[in-house]
Amino acid sequence: MPQNPNVSPLAPHPPGLRPWQARLHEVIFEADTPAGKAFDVALLVTILLSIVVVMLESVASIRQTYGRFLYGAEWLFTILFTIEYALRLACVSRPARYARSFFGVVDLLAIVPTYLSLVVVGSQSLIVIRAFRLLRVFRVFKLSRYLSEGRAIVLALKASQRKITVFLVTVLTVVLIIGAAMYLIEGPQHGFTSIPVAVYWAVVTMTTVGYGDIAPQTVPGQALAAVVMILGYSIIIVPTGIFSVEIAVERLRGASTQACPSCSAEGHDVDARYCKYCGTRL
Amino acid sequence: MPQNPNVSPLAPHPPGLRPWQARLHEVIFEADTPAGKAFDVALLVTILLSIVVVMLESVASIRQTYGRFLYGAEWLFTILFTIEYALRLACVSRPARYARSFFGVVDLLAIVPTYLSLVVVGSQSLIVIRAFRLLRVFRVFKLSRYLSEGRAIVLALKASQRKITVFLVTVLTVVLIIGAAMYLIEGPQHGFTSIPVAVYWAVVTMTTVGYGDIAPQTVPGQALAAVVMILGYSIIIVPTGIFSVEIAVERLRGASTQACPSCSAEGHDVDARYCKYCGTRL
Amino acid sequence: MPQNPNVSPLAPHPPGLRPWQARLHEVIFEADTPAGKAFDVALLVTILLSIVVVMLESVASIRQTYGRFLYGAEWLFTILFTIEYALRLACVSRPARYARSFFGVVDLLAIVPTYLSLVVVGSQSLIVIRAFRLLRVFRVFKLSRYLSEGRAIVLALKASQRKITVFLVTVLTVVLIIGAAMYLIEGPQHGFTSIPVAVYWAVVTMTTVGYGDIAPQTVPGQALAAVVMILGYSIIIVPTGIFSVEIAVERLRGASTQACPSCSAEGHDVDARYCKYCGTRL
Amino acid sequence: MPQNPNVSPLAPHPPGLRPWQARLHEVIFEADTPAGKAFDVALLVTILLSIVVVMLESVASIRQTYGRFLYGAEWLFTILFTIEYALRLACVSRPARYARSFFGVVDLLAIVPTYLSLVVVGSQSLIVIRAFRLLRVFRVFKLSRYLSEGRAIVLALKASQRKITVFLVTVLTVVLIIGAAMYLIEGPQHGFTSIPVAVYWAVVTMTTVGYGDIAPQTVPGQALAAVVMILGYSIIIVPTGIFSVEIAVERLRGASTQACPSCSAEGHDVDARYCKYCGTRL
Repeated sequence: MPQNPNVSPLAPHPPGLRPWQARLHEVIFEADTPAGKAFDVALLVTILLSIVVVMLESVASIRQTYGRFLYGAEWLFTILFTIEYALRLACVSRPARYARSFFGVVDLLAIVPTYLSLVVVGSQSLIVIRAFRLLRVFRVFKLSRYLSEGRAIVLALKASQRKITVFLVTVLTVVLIIGAAMYLIEGPQHGFTSIPVAVYWAVVTMTTVGYGDIAPQTVPGQALAAVVMILGYSIIIVPTGIFSVEIAVERLRGASTQACPSCSAEGHDVDARYCKYCGTRL
Repeated sequence: MPQNPNVSPLAPHPPGLRPWQARLHEVIFEADTPAGKAFDVALLVTILLSIVVVMLESVASIRQTYGRFLYGAEWLFTILFTIEYALRLACVSRPARYARSFFGVVDLLAIVPTYLSLVVVGSQSLIVIRAFRLLRVFRVFKLSRYLSEGRAIVLALKASQRKITVFLVTVLTVVLIIGAAMYLIEGPQHGFTSIPVAVYWAVVTMTTVGYGDIAPQTVPGQALAAVVMILGYSIIIVPTGIFSVEIAVERLRGASTQACPSCSAEGHDVDARYCKYCGTRL
Repeated sequence: MPQNPNVSPLAPHPPGLRPWQARLHEVIFEADTPAGKAFDVALLVTILLSIVVVMLESVASIRQTYGRFLYGAEWLFTILFTIEYALRLACVSRPARYARSFFGVVDLLAIVPTYLSLVVVGSQSLIVIRAFRLLRVFRVFKLSRYLSEGRAIVLALKASQRKITVFLVTVLTVVLIIGAAMYLIEGPQHGFTSIPVAVYWAVVTMTTVGYGDIAPQTVPGQALAAVVMILGYSIIIVPTGIFSVEIAVERLRGASTQACPSCSAEGHDVDARYCKYCGTRL
Repeated sequence: MPQNPNVSPLAPHPPGLRPWQARLHEVIFEADTPAGKAFDVALLVTILLSIVVVMLESVASIRQTYGRFLYGAEWLFTILFTIEYALRLACVSRPARYARSFFGVVDLLAIVPTYLSLVVVGSQSLIVIRAFRLLRVFRVFKLSRYLSEGRAIVLALKASQRKITVFLVTVLTVVLIIGAAMYLIEGPQHGFTSIPVAVYWAVVTMTTVGYGDIAPQTVPGQALAAVVMILGYSIIIVPTGIFSVEIAVERLRGASTQACPSCSAEGHDVDARYCKYCGTRL
């Protein structure tokens, strides 16, 4: 999640940067100037192309025909992204901080697999981690608004965190018990070869995915399965209700953006006439 | 979505129309007069019949027996709709505007495939685009109320648009990563023949559809699949919560915008005749 | 839905009934007296048993062993229910009104199939219509509260009716179009044998049921399927949001049960100080 | 659900306990002191390990290699849990009350199956009941807050209990009817071998699980199935709406019950220090 953009887009250039660094920083890290926006759009297109290349390379028939071309393209993108990573390190005042940030780690992980593929076979597919870089898309158009939307979702999730933890732990416990019961009822001859497999079946059923690769065949097994389905179908309402209410609370709080003239506290209700923290008339 | 009916049903006839045009306009475009309503109902029945004909024609056994009859019916409907389209063009004051409107485009697309089928084989099935014409059903009974309901949904979707974009982009990114991981874990021998196929599997699983045509067979694969299922099962709550709150906001806003003339309080119910705070007549 | 119990349980006996009719009415139609409650519980148990008998009779292995016994039990229950139906007709003041009510029709449909099975083979299975009689369960314990809960659900559904109609018509139109498109893309050789079958597939996929009996096998087909899944997965939020808000409105309205001392109007907001209809202070 | 922890973590030691009992009680039943917390964490790890042992033991290939070791570990855990159960009984003032409490029963059920397996073959798998002991996890970190969250969910479920009962009874009735109808339409030759099996199919379809082990193959069967799917897909909104509203009511009630000492206004936020209507200090 793009919570921590390295610098606010409207902040002045970080002190301690030389002119060329400040210039570069503006282009690479910000999306307000035409050059910055053009760079971000070009970057996104490049990322998308590099993902398409990896995906196509995994299709046997395409690899046989265009394998060489795709291999070349793959290395081209990796070198481009390596240069970009180096430039990013070069133009921030605190490179270590960027390298440890969410996007810093992702930017590094996006180039490592290709180099790694020279040593370990197959690690190339990990390049799809590049997909995380697509989250930069939020930076291109009205960055701050999208970021605050994401923050609202995160806040509501945090507020309902404890209720949802209680809910998830209970669900996982139930799935374990039901899996073991099905293992006893149906047994290995009907596809429930072990308790882990039966627990896998319980998750498949409870989440209403229902592959059908394993399905109960005895009458008691089908009866228990029916109970699990209705349970799984029903309990989705619990986290939905909890989260909806938190989003509503978040939204209402956001509605009033009035700050107290005396203590500058925010978060007042829409119908509040006095600051609830210091008692000053709003 | 029927957002843009060409003319409000209660508006006077557009100026610049000759009497026969105005008459025709009333019958074809409006649903208030008995003639207008009868025309709309007849049109809906005809559209439904023409869709049934196309569907039946695609069933091999029925085509062999009634093929000729269905072919004739198909052309009959197409000619009827062509005449209707010509009349619509003839009785509006600005034909170009109608032709570019949502229903104008749909009306054209509804007749083109049959003519096209004389040239391109199979394009006939596109006639089902006619189904979009069924949206005219909202015009028959209490048009404006249904339209405003549709508008409320659209407004709430627009208000939650940014939050849902953030949500969808994140989901798609996760689906890409998980697909690549499963391709590495399960490999082509278990049905995950390429990354695009594995991503398709991730979508099938995350949305809890679960066809079962591709299913993980190794223990780590099943473990990751279980995580994906619980993730997919859980995250539906995020857009649900967001949208519910927007619908609530929309609904409350729609309640009333009337302010009390005496105490200026707002938020009165639609059916309120007196201010609920100070008792003044609204 | 048990909206229309023939008589309110607390109402005095309908006029025009002879003493034995009034007595019988109290036992059969009401659940307040010990005799009335005992009758209702006995009736529910009998209904459940008769449904179990029909279900067991359909299992081949059980039918071969206990066929005669089950056939006898079936006729016993039918005769009991026929007597009950006759008594119900005998002890109400307006038999025709009861016969046309929801439960009157269900009570008749519950006995007809057995007699019909003497003429038409297989119609016996329709006896499961008896299951509808189980809705009488709400009468046994705290009738009126459960009825009012059911009414709250019905009211909220009615309030969101138009929005949900707009939603459903749009969904069905989309399903038709997508079905036709998949028929063109995948074709009969991949299981999409006709447009009706393809539309069936579209419904199976959009509702996230996903049997897997028909599944896309070409790349464009799988891509379109992925879009349909995400669409189906997402749009469930629309009616959920709409209905949740209506339930909330219904619930809040129910919160304040204060009646206006002047005009007796109800449905005031919790924070209302004056009647919103006549302006009297509450 | 962990509603009834034997003693509040902050309460003084129950009277009538000898010093060593009080000491033991503090370690075993409470999680505030370092020793108590360490005991709880160790207990959770032991429970998790014992569950992993049972699950691994059910996998044929692992059992063949490590069978003896797992059997030994199983008995080791059982003896440890037996000692723990005995100590718990020894250090509470009212052992019978603990033995009848939720966790008391679970603690006993967690050790019985191993001893039982000496007599009955296969009963060993019931050991997974130990999973319920994992609910003790809520005791480790901020016990009381998690417990109150669980209580909020339970309260909201209780408040919506009647509405959800009405909903579930109606759904089950519909499932019975639809199952019988599908048995008549599709018949044993298409997999609907009996009414119970057809009802199982109806549950699988209505909850959108959709295994695909049984699927309609005739046109009327597929049409009815499509209706069932849209029904099942839609009705999830009913309990979701009901429960969301109850959670909202619960949440608002929890907000604050404090009234302003000056103007008696209520509905203040939990963190409010001044009345938001008149500015008086709360």
